[in-house]
Amino acid sequence: MSVDIPETNFPRVVIIGGGFGGIQAAKKLNSKEVQVIMIDRHNYHTFQPLLYQVATGGLEPDSIAHPLRKIFKNQKNFIFRVAEAQEVIADKKVLVTNIGEIHYDYLVIATGSSSNYFGMKDLEKHTMPMKTIPEALDMRSLVLQNLESALLTDSINEQEAYMNFVVVGGGPTGVETAGALAELKNHVLPHDYPELDIRRMQINLIEGGDRLLGAMSVQASEKSADFLKSMGVNVRLNERVLSFDGERVQLGSGKGLETKVVIWSAGVKGVTLPGINKEVIVGGNRFKVNVFNQIEGYDNIFAIGDVAAMITDEFPKGHPGVAPAAIQQGRLFAKNIIKKINDIPMEPFKYFDKGSMATVGRNRAVVDMGFIRFQGTFAWFVWMFVHLMTLVGFRNRVVVFVNWVWSYFSYDRGTRLIIRRFEKENDKKLEQVEA
Amino acid sequence: MSVDIPETNFPRVVIIGGGFGGIQAAKKLNSKEVQVIMIDRHNYHTFQPLLYQVATGGLEPDSIAHPLRKIFKNQKNFIFRVAEAQEVIADKKVLVTNIGEIHYDYLVIATGSSSNYFGMKDLEKHTMPMKTIPEALDMRSLVLQNLESALLTDSINEQEAYMNFVVVGGGPTGVETAGALAELKNHVLPHDYPELDIRRMQINLIEGGDRLLGAMSVQASEKSADFLKSMGVNVRLNERVLSFDGERVQLGSGKGLETKVVIWSAGVKGVTLPGINKEVIVGGNRFKVNVFNQIEGYDNIFAIGDVAAMITDEFPKGHPGVAPAAIQQGRLFAKNIIKKINDIPMEPFKYFDKGSMATVGRNRAVVDMGFIRFQGTFAWFVWMFVHLMTLVGFRNRVVVFVNWVWSYFSYDRGTRLIIRRFEKENDKKLEQVEA
Repeated sequence: MSVDIPETNFPRVVIIGGGFGGIQAAKKLNSKEVQVIMIDRHNYHTFQPLLYQVATGGLEPDSIAHPLRKIFKNQKNFIFRVAEAQEVIADKKVLVTNIGEIHYDYLVIATGSSSNYFGMKDLEKHTMPMKTIPEALDMRSLVLQNLESALLTDSINEQEAYMNFVVVGGGPTGVETAGALAELKNHVLPHDYPELDIRRMQINLIEGGDRLLGAMSVQASEKSADFLKSMGVNVRLNERVLSFDGERVQLGSGKGLETKVVIWSAGVKGVTLPGINKEVIVGGNRFKVNVFNQIEGYDNIFAIGDVAAMITDEFPKGHPGVAPAAIQQGRLFAKNIIKKINDIPMEPFKYFDKGSMATVGRNRAVVDMGFIRFQGTFAWFVWMFVHLMTLVGFRNRVVVFVNWVWSYFSYDRGTRLIIRRFEKENDKKLEQVEA
Repeated sequence: MSVDIPETNFPRVVIIGGGFGGIQAAKKLNSKEVQVIMIDRHNYHTFQPLLYQVATGGLEPDSIAHPLRKIFKNQKNFIFRVAEAQEVIADKKVLVTNIGEIHYDYLVIATGSSSNYFGMKDLEKHTMPMKTIPEALDMRSLVLQNLESALLTDSINEQEAYMNFVVVGGGPTGVETAGALAELKNHVLPHDYPELDIRRMQINLIEGGDRLLGAMSVQASEKSADFLKSMGVNVRLNERVLSFDGERVQLGSGKGLETKVVIWSAGVKGVTLPGINKEVIVGGNRFKVNVFNQIEGYDNIFAIGDVAAMITDEFPKGHPGVAPAAIQQGRLFAKNIIKKINDIPMEPFKYFDKGSMATVGRNRAVVDMGFIRFQGTFAWFVWMFVHLMTLVGFRNRVVVFVNWVWSYFSYDRGTRLIIRRFEKENDKKLEQVEA
């Protein structure tokens, strides 16, 4: 059965995913002679860089989500459907989805990435991922539920297990999450839980490599570790997580940690799609693309953002899985597809590295911009400014700004709510669009 | 098993419920020589008067919820537990909860009210209630899901059924919800869904009596009906809903409406608790209390707010189930319990009617304050001001204010998000603390 969308006289571009890349691709095709169809599992765009603030009670979920229909409300050649991509039938130019088949002339796979557990099923089952808003809300509920549970036990060991938070992965998400938990511990929880000795709350950040923020400068790595330690986080480098059964984390060094919450930010993998030649799926479960983002062996199927691996001399593993890379590829795709339709040679992708940054806590952030590197209060203000400006939607910017100003002056975090309880028994559903 | 809370030398007051009444009772006992224990199913207070704005995408849920621990963070004689009350064992002075037994010297039942289906099981199963934040979020998801579904069908009849919204009950919640849906229809949805003919969207407000807002003046009733009609709502007075099977509403007049969403705001009933003499449960499933809010036949068990029926000459059916009545009873309880402990005669309750108001839409509200009655733009600003000032928490006030200013100038509503899909198969769980 085919989805009921009238064909126009223009070529049809189907975009899978309303993330940073997909949005830019669609936006730049505004007023162009193409029909743009976007599908996404959700009816909103998620501003993933701030998910950890939702998970730690700093921001409401609605301020980092933006309705996709609202973004495109004045774009006449744009059609949106809430749908899950299931399979590509390339020789028929058809995308199969849960709402039916959609014909395409050009297909853009902008499905992004999901948590990578490297095949470890127990970790997939028991740890908390943080790639979507429902996942961040589940984590928020679980953190708060555990503090409530800590009040209900007589056993000191069990109480400490409830207050032991383990974050796996020392990339930006792990560092930011550990820092935000430390801020909760230092400024908020002692007032909320006077009956608990919050000093016994532990925050462990586990990183397999020999430094945090491995993609940034050594200076940023060292400074962020210093910041975290000064805030009371146990930073464990050169350490691996072997297993977690919901009660105990086994580390590679032989140590075990009794805990009820393990937050998984140790890796991501591309969300690929059946129907594309499996041979072109390379490291990180990504589609190998050429300099025009065409998937190897396909002329009219493109991949952009986290799910694309454009392997070049400069980037032998592809570009970093960050928003600017996806945004730039989305924009170039839009430009190139119009060229292609008009038989003009496409432009190759050239990544413009805007630098990278991570925040650890109040007045503590690290910024690398080429050879310019700085850390501390100014870096923190730069981080806030850049994230505010990148947020989609004016309303969201104002609400986030209000929350940050409020937190700055009150040392408080407003949204420590258990709106829906997280029940461990509700085993987390695996990503539906996954290879 | 008893909940592990150390006894103090002071009498223990246990409050069930962190609504308007419970919060005031606990607050006014600050620094008094009592130990205050509050339990609630949620870890937050819900500002129920604005739930309909969450359900219709106007406000984020987190801005009308306020963490209970935060409200009481500096109150030394206050202890909170997330728990569900299950039973009172009055002769042992024990409250049984899902986390164990709690001993009390004085018990305050401030459990509020839940939707009343008057025994109609099909309505309970298939309609959407709007008494809690998860329920409001479910409604928000369902409204948006239905519009998405309307895009997927070829059948005009089915499309119209997806776009037919039925609100049952012409009290403030019903009027405000119907009005908010009309604003969505008139200002937001035509931009979001250019493919749908939104003019075919129907909003039906069904009221059994001969006027809307039956508790307000005739002037308010007539004006609110006029407002709703001018916004395109079908107001059906003297009409009853006989049944709803999830597809079709059968009305008492013989008419049937094909629809996928029926919003139930036709009545509430008190959330009573087993263990209290059933004979003192009166109309509306409320506990009959004396002028000191003591439940009839009990000296140390009180009921306040929606679950209490204080029957007097002036209020032969008890006080209205509104926030000011609960707030005033909560405050008086705190004052009286200290008197009682010190063997000073308690003060009888005297309701101070602050008037009532309801908003229909932009520049359209109705206000009754004694003999002063006004409607329209000024009433709307009064309504907004009063609600902003009553909201708990400065952060929430600012965020709500920003949202309202934003909506006023943009004619937009920011949070039309399907964060978690509402699946009809997940049959709604019945209230757990219910008679």
